[in-house]
Amino acid sequence: MEIDPAKLTIADRYKLLIGCIVPRPIAFVSSVSPDGRPNLAPFSFFNGIGSDPMSLLFCPVNKPDGSEKDSLRNAKPASEGGVGEFVVNVATEDYSRRMAAAAEPLEYGASEFELAGLHEAPSLCVRPPRLAESPVAFECRTIQVVRLNPGKAGGGNIVIGEVVHVFVRDDLINERLHTDPEKLRAIGRMGGTGYTRTHDRFEMPQGKAALDA
Amino acid sequence: MEIDPAKLTIADRYKLLIGCIVPRPIAFVSSVSPDGRPNLAPFSFFNGIGSDPMSLLFCPVNKPDGSEKDSLRNAKPASEGGVGEFVVNVATEDYSRRMAAAAEPLEYGASEFELAGLHEAPSLCVRPPRLAESPVAFECRTIQVVRLNPGKAGGGNIVIGEVVHVFVRDDLINERLHTDPEKLRAIGRMGGTGYTRTHDRFEMPQGKAALDA
Repeated sequence: MEIDPAKLTIADRYKLLIGCIVPRPIAFVSSVSPDGRPNLAPFSFFNGIGSDPMSLLFCPVNKPDGSEKDSLRNAKPASEGGVGEFVVNVATEDYSRRMAAAAEPLEYGASEFELAGLHEAPSLCVRPPRLAESPVAFECRTIQVVRLNPGKAGGGNIVIGEVVHVFVRDDLINERLHTDPEKLRAIGRMGGTGYTRTHDRFEMPQGKAALDA
Repeated sequence: MEIDPAKLTIADRYKLLIGCIVPRPIAFVSSVSPDGRPNLAPFSFFNGIGSDPMSLLFCPVNKPDGSEKDSLRNAKPASEGGVGEFVVNVATEDYSRRMAAAAEPLEYGASEFELAGLHEAPSLCVRPPRLAESPVAFECRTIQVVRLNPGKAGGGNIVIGEVVHVFVRDDLINERLHTDPEKLRAIGRMGGTGYTRTHDRFEMPQGKAALDA
């Protein structure tokens, strides 16, 4: 099938992106408003960027009315009216239903922690709390926000963060900083309302050696 | 474990990112040099951005000598000396070893298609070919490249592309643009040399309903 995006609705373009770009890691982002009210929301347009600076990004799309999602309002730099900090918690099987519950649209300032029955733990280097239930948390300072279509429904935004502190639960990581995927139990996002677990794994070398492995 | 990235090597920061941000979708990027030589390379710092414009990104990190990877040299806008176009092919179980083989570092202009035994198919809207073996291809025009630390080892770059055409193999997609994950057989990247399959799936509604599901 050959598809011209110009002929699709915004909803159908989104369906194609989330159905074909799989599996996606889930950033369960905690943030605070400038007056200190906590927010929690999952984003699967999320990934690492590079190691110097240690950096990652998540992409909150504009709401149907073109306005910015709460996580973006909170995480954008102080010069743009935000706090300039956020925490990426990693979504796992152990609290997956509470994570999905936090996607409930609430009014700005209402707490998804309460709604979902999740708990705050203090961060070490940034104001937003990390999620107590998450075995991994990346504390981030916002470097920049790139807006592809500000004020328009479906317009993407890229929140670029420098990782200034990392929390990893002790039993998941060894002294060489190797994390155990079997204990982490991360989940990934698929199309529609689908998710994948990460137990069905295999190993491959990189480069020519993969052909003989 | 509480970890201060400032005290880690670039390699250890990378190990933490790829061990904890999982599972990552794989963009198998095809591009061409300005003089028309094809290139193919996998990137797992990759995801969608938004729907208007329909957009996605991948993040090629700088090489140890600080120089740009071939995919970035090719995909960057013409104003920066590149071609300004690229294709994201989706990595699947069916050609996973050939995909991993294409990560072999070759000199600029040498073809990973040949090395890995993979085949070009013509794109409809951009110069770089799509990968004949891939069931999905996003043809992209580069909107912008964001560089976090140009010229430095480990510096991340974000290649932002507008999706101008999509190819999906007929048996994977229905007339409502729903893709079948069981037939797609996408693989995701884990830490180290690990990958995950995407057959171990489950469904959850979004929002409060997830708590009762």
